Amino acid sequence: MKFNAYLLSVALLFGANVLSAQSNIQKITAFRKANEQDIIKEYLKLVAIPDETNDSANVLLNAGYIKEMLVKRGISNAELLTSPSANPVVYGDVKVPGATKTIIFYAHYDGQPVNPKQWSPGLKPFEPVFITAPIEQGGHIIDYKPSDAIDPAWRLSGRASADDKAGVMCIVNAYDALVKSKLKPTYNIKFFFEGEEERGSTHLADFLAKYKSKLASDLWIICDGPRHVSGKKMVSFGVRGDINMALTIYGPKRPLHSGNYGNWAPNPGLMMAQLLAGMKDDNGHVTIKGFYDDVTPLSAREKEAISKIPAVEPALKKDLGVAEPEGGVRPLIEAIMLPTLNINGMASGNVGALAANVIPTKAEAMLDLRLVLGNDVERQVKKVTDYIKAKGYYITDKDPTDEERTKYGKIIKISHDAGYNAQRTPMDLPIAQSVITAIQSTVAYPLILTPSSGGSLPLFVFEKALGAKVITIPMVNYDSNQHAENENVKISYLWEGIETIAALMQMK
Amino acid sequence: MKFNAYLLSVALLFGANVLSAQSNIQKITAFRKANEQDIIKEYLKLVAIPDETNDSANVLLNAGYIKEMLVKRGISNAELLTSPSANPVVYGDVKVPGATKTIIFYAHYDGQPVNPKQWSPGLKPFEPVFITAPIEQGGHIIDYKPSDAIDPAWRLSGRASADDKAGVMCIVNAYDALVKSKLKPTYNIKFFFEGEEERGSTHLADFLAKYKSKLASDLWIICDGPRHVSGKKMVSFGVRGDINMALTIYGPKRPLHSGNYGNWAPNPGLMMAQLLAGMKDDNGHVTIKGFYDDVTPLSAREKEAISKIPAVEPALKKDLGVAEPEGGVRPLIEAIMLPTLNINGMASGNVGALAANVIPTKAEAMLDLRLVLGNDVERQVKKVTDYIKAKGYYITDKDPTDEERTKYGKIIKISHDAGYNAQRTPMDLPIAQSVITAIQSTVAYPLILTPSSGGSLPLFVFEKALGAKVITIPMVNYDSNQHAENENVKISYLWEGIETIAALMQMK
Repeated sequence: MKFNAYLLSVALLFGANVLSAQSNIQKITAFRKANEQDIIKEYLKLVAIPDETNDSANVLLNAGYIKEMLVKRGISNAELLTSPSANPVVYGDVKVPGATKTIIFYAHYDGQPVNPKQWSPGLKPFEPVFITAPIEQGGHIIDYKPSDAIDPAWRLSGRASADDKAGVMCIVNAYDALVKSKLKPTYNIKFFFEGEEERGSTHLADFLAKYKSKLASDLWIICDGPRHVSGKKMVSFGVRGDINMALTIYGPKRPLHSGNYGNWAPNPGLMMAQLLAGMKDDNGHVTIKGFYDDVTPLSAREKEAISKIPAVEPALKKDLGVAEPEGGVRPLIEAIMLPTLNINGMASGNVGALAANVIPTKAEAMLDLRLVLGNDVERQVKKVTDYIKAKGYYITDKDPTDEERTKYGKIIKISHDAGYNAQRTPMDLPIAQSVITAIQSTVAYPLILTPSSGGSLPLFVFEKALGAKVITIPMVNYDSNQHAENENVKISYLWEGIETIAALMQMK
Repeated sequence: MKFNAYLLSVALLFGANVLSAQSNIQKITAFRKANEQDIIKEYLKLVAIPDETNDSANVLLNAGYIKEMLVKRGISNAELLTSPSANPVVYGDVKVPGATKTIIFYAHYDGQPVNPKQWSPGLKPFEPVFITAPIEQGGHIIDYKPSDAIDPAWRLSGRASADDKAGVMCIVNAYDALVKSKLKPTYNIKFFFEGEEERGSTHLADFLAKYKSKLASDLWIICDGPRHVSGKKMVSFGVRGDINMALTIYGPKRPLHSGNYGNWAPNPGLMMAQLLAGMKDDNGHVTIKGFYDDVTPLSAREKEAISKIPAVEPALKKDLGVAEPEGGVRPLIEAIMLPTLNINGMASGNVGALAANVIPTKAEAMLDLRLVLGNDVERQVKKVTDYIKAKGYYITDKDPTDEERTKYGKIIKISHDAGYNAQRTPMDLPIAQSVITAIQSTVAYPLILTPSSGGSLPLFVFEKALGAKVITIPMVNYDSNQHAENENVKISYLWEGIETIAALMQMK
């Protein structure tokens, strides 16, 4: 940790606290260095327990192992919270003498379903190994023995190594380091490790309702997701809401010979193309009436934070093969601050070798609507539905009857999931400022602060069910292949994550 | 055969010829009635020989059987014409003393690939049986014995029973009936039974080149396809051309998280929707520059013929569940006289249960362009390509390189098959008038005369390679399920087809 001009200016601004935080973090780092082989041993064991979210038997083994990790660290009240049909939550808490406020640390221990065949040769989802770099970028597997020194540039490969067992490891070991270094937490601490995030946190609301008083806190810290593309530490004060709408437009009842009936029988593929095409203009602006009307404007503080986020566009363009982003020169971070409408999928008839000269019977599309603060899922769906209605469509929620087909020229089936709203914590709340100060004390560069991530999590339930504030602190490397093959964590991110959480446990 | 007012007016117009043709047809009918059990026996045997077009071993058995059918009828020069990699053509000819002109009768004996599992219980593609009506409309299988009388309302079920072994049966038995009834053909007669129509007549041009002098004739009569929806006999003077264009629009190189990158990364699904949507206006009119410019206008005679075709739209609307045809009130037959542009298929990402919140990497579409007289496949493709270019697309014929992706914001891959042009024989040619008069003599209602069918066949090759005229005389019932499960022929259509062909063999 070197003192540079930036850190010095922070120290001058916040005074002695920052300097004392600095010395505390050095203790945490020292503890980690002395114990990193034990930490890695436990991490390897944890990643080796299969945890595909629908494999409840194995998921339960993970829960038991993590509960023991808490008990081993003196959290003797660790327990499994249960709800019917749900994978359990691993819970524990620590009352800190003199503390008046409570932070609850969230991570999840279940992983995405995985297809081992897609992994690079030598890598297996539940047989974690160290690699020098991603295999597809020329890395190789390290012949690691438990007594070997660990290079922080190495990566540990395995399903859920990043998403989100890294979160569990950072939280548990930060607490351990704190206690063993004789540093006192400033808040009461609770641990909440979910077991079904990867299947949509189906029972999260049930858990929050059932264990409302046990889960009472001032702040939820969500340890999940990757840090900024630049590699810098990041604090995200919100997530977007999300809802999917499935559209089906109907053509003739049977597939028709395109020569005998084409240009007389309505073509549902063309109808879908024309319906979707009009939803956005050439600048990527959604043309649906009122689409942006209820967006809560960014505060001055939020705007300022955004303006300081380093540009990622040149690197992304190269990486992704994008010459002209949708919306032109608008930075990605500005797009993230707006509600979106995207086509996730579109299908009508067949393409490629299966294509036939027919007028298809239907065309389908799946829309993805991301919501920001101020939007409401039901209102957002209504805006899209009203747009479709204004285009002359008869709207139904099931396949049309013969009578409806005879009556209406343009028929569309619309269905959607429940969806959920966005969540955003104001960056200028005192507790938000405390979080920023604590994490800032661990690094020598300005943190990346974002009012909201681009992605979605149902974090609004914490606010709604418990009245708690929520802030997300991502732990792992950007290129960790979350949800995909060859998932991995760069070890330096694990070490830095422990420091981050330890700093939060001592924040003022 | 009853003489009604219409037929009387035809007789008054054309005089004695019609009355003599009438009496000749009665002889054909009498011969057929006396021999129908033998005809059916042979038909059942022919349909029982599997003939899926890619099953060359079995296709060859069909060819041998049909050659023997010709020999049995005194056409001793019957032979198999060959070309490398091609299923053979069954050929034979009859020189008629005094005849100065030649008609060549075309049918094909190969069938579409078939999935027996899709057929109704009791029906098997290559075990032909009689049914009282389509099984799906409440028909049942008849326990037929070879000596039973045959009800002309019955249908014979089996793959290729309609498409196009019915054509072979009608041609061969018309000639047989003519000779055995001691009626003399007025033209030299040639027989041409193709063995690979169902895989695109891949070697037809090779055969026409190799056997150019053998195949010389004044007129090709194509016996293929279903008669008009009204059940009336039909003469079609042309077919449309056809070409398919496959389009692929590229998005980011990897599928991207729609929350983290949506509305920044270009969405290829939306780009495809916007490209396709603009190709047609709300009236079904293709907006592509010059799309209709080179269409050869219909002659007065053709316009008149079209105006007399009975309306099929009310029945089709009910049958197909169509409330508002594309192009509004324009009759189907008018749409068929125009070049078309249709979307056969469209795909991007996934829909339904497989849908994911991603920005897909590409969007694909398959276009079907039907061509009419005056159009040219290369010109038609160029019109569409120019339209796409004018929308700002960089056009390639392969997946883009990284360099192209960096350089061009809108990239599309366009590929297409060879395609072929339309064919149309003017209805007022003397030989066309002879055909009309001959077939009209077999029925008491006005024939359906159409300048062109909606579908496509590469009939232009006969004109191009041999300088011959081509007229299509469809043989079978409209609801014969050609290319599909439960294919069948209504026996009355077989009997009427024999009369039709016999009338053509004696036309003036």
